[in-house]
Amino acid sequence: MSSLPLPPSLPALFTPHLPPSSSPPSSRPFLTLTFATSLDSSLSLAPGVRTTLSGPASKTMTHYLRSQHASILIGVGTALADDPGLNCRIAGCASPRPIVLDPRGRWGFTEDAKVLQLARAGEGKAPFVFVGGGVEIDEGRRAVLERHGGKYVVMGTDERGRFAWVDVLAAIQREGLGSVMVEGGGEVINSLLRAPENELVDSVIVTIAPTWLGQGGVVVSPERTGEPVRLTGVEWHPLGEDIVLCGKILR
Amino acid sequence: MSSLPLPPSLPALFTPHLPPSSSPPSSRPFLTLTFATSLDSSLSLAPGVRTTLSGPASKTMTHYLRSQHASILIGVGTALADDPGLNCRIAGCASPRPIVLDPRGRWGFTEDAKVLQLARAGEGKAPFVFVGGGVEIDEGRRAVLERHGGKYVVMGTDERGRFAWVDVLAAIQREGLGSVMVEGGGEVINSLLRAPENELVDSVIVTIAPTWLGQGGVVVSPERTGEPVRLTGVEWHPLGEDIVLCGKILR
Repeated sequence: MSSLPLPPSLPALFTPHLPPSSSPPSSRPFLTLTFATSLDSSLSLAPGVRTTLSGPASKTMTHYLRSQHASILIGVGTALADDPGLNCRIAGCASPRPIVLDPRGRWGFTEDAKVLQLARAGEGKAPFVFVGGGVEIDEGRRAVLERHGGKYVVMGTDERGRFAWVDVLAAIQREGLGSVMVEGGGEVINSLLRAPENELVDSVIVTIAPTWLGQGGVVVSPERTGEPVRLTGVEWHPLGEDIVLCGKILR
Repeated sequence: MSSLPLPPSLPALFTPHLPPSSSPPSSRPFLTLTFATSLDSSLSLAPGVRTTLSGPASKTMTHYLRSQHASILIGVGTALADDPGLNCRIAGCASPRPIVLDPRGRWGFTEDAKVLQLARAGEGKAPFVFVGGGVEIDEGRRAVLERHGGKYVVMGTDERGRFAWVDVLAAIQREGLGSVMVEGGGEVINSLLRAPENELVDSVIVTIAPTWLGQGGVVVSPERTGEPVRLTGVEWHPLGEDIVLCGKILR
């Protein structure tokens, strides 16, 4: 994989919105929620359809943000749809630990998964796959994962078969990972944006592309559980044709 | 009504996106599509619920934009929900001619409607109400409208009881109005954003507030009739906590 050049101006823009480099011990990891949408708040044209929305400058930003977090988290839907690398492609940067939320054990990866290819090549880390207590783990797959330095982490689920965010963050903390960048997909993002779960979000970085994908996309819009979700300390940074919004959720 | 102060920097930002002050005769009016949404592309919390999304600076911008157009157009849903004034409150500015699209004759206004109060006070113009051919016009209401300088304009509708945009623009042209600012609501905006109707849009100005209204809002997202609707010549202008996007629809 070719590496991405880091524009010198990028770090200064985002440092105030990223995990502090030195901080007092915290009871949970610093959580940055970041994703790219269309003007009509769609992540993609349809579930499972990889959709390129943002420009090359946004890609570099994403890789820079990855380098500034100990871990990067996605839902299994994104793992299945995108086969993402989840590494940092900026030269000399550390890649975060990928975490895949897979409460029902749907991720039937092989060693050809991009994230494992990158781990073999020393260009990224193998994932920690969080599965629900009722999942029967395939032993061959467990072996593949562990050979690459990854593992399965078994956790309890609620009556709808989902993880609670407080449990997910506690497990990340137990792994010694002090920060997590949540990248997608729609279900993961919406469940974190709504109250009261959004109290766990420390920083929000949203890239918006000047495009309407139209009705039928995978939409970011939290379930209404109270007042509208407002951001505070807002900054807008143009990046190519896109805009990047940084802020914190107003309590 | 108190007047709004015009920040001296505002006109220069928007001039490239507004109707040219002198231009060769055109076959149809210059059309600017403008509205404000949340991050999840909602205009309001629910149909008929007036929702304040954008900050005071955006309000001033909207009034400036109104002053730069010969007419301002809304759908009847917005007239019913918001009772809008549709004038320009910047001192010394001309107010545009309000046009209300009401194909089924649902707007049961009285002379207490804000737009008529403003017309009486010399602070705005009375509306031209576009109604479908099958609508029985109340003669008392027609008299009220005409006494204020407004009128009904009768037009044909399609089999679904809607106006065609080419007909609406032709009627605006016949009234000698060389430009129109389309302000809402959701149905009007979505019907103009989709192809092929979006060929009639000369300029797009969208304000985005750093808030998620959550599921169930009145969403701007065009019906898919082809490729995603992309903007070109894009500019992003921060305005208070909001961002304003200017561009043209890519053909």
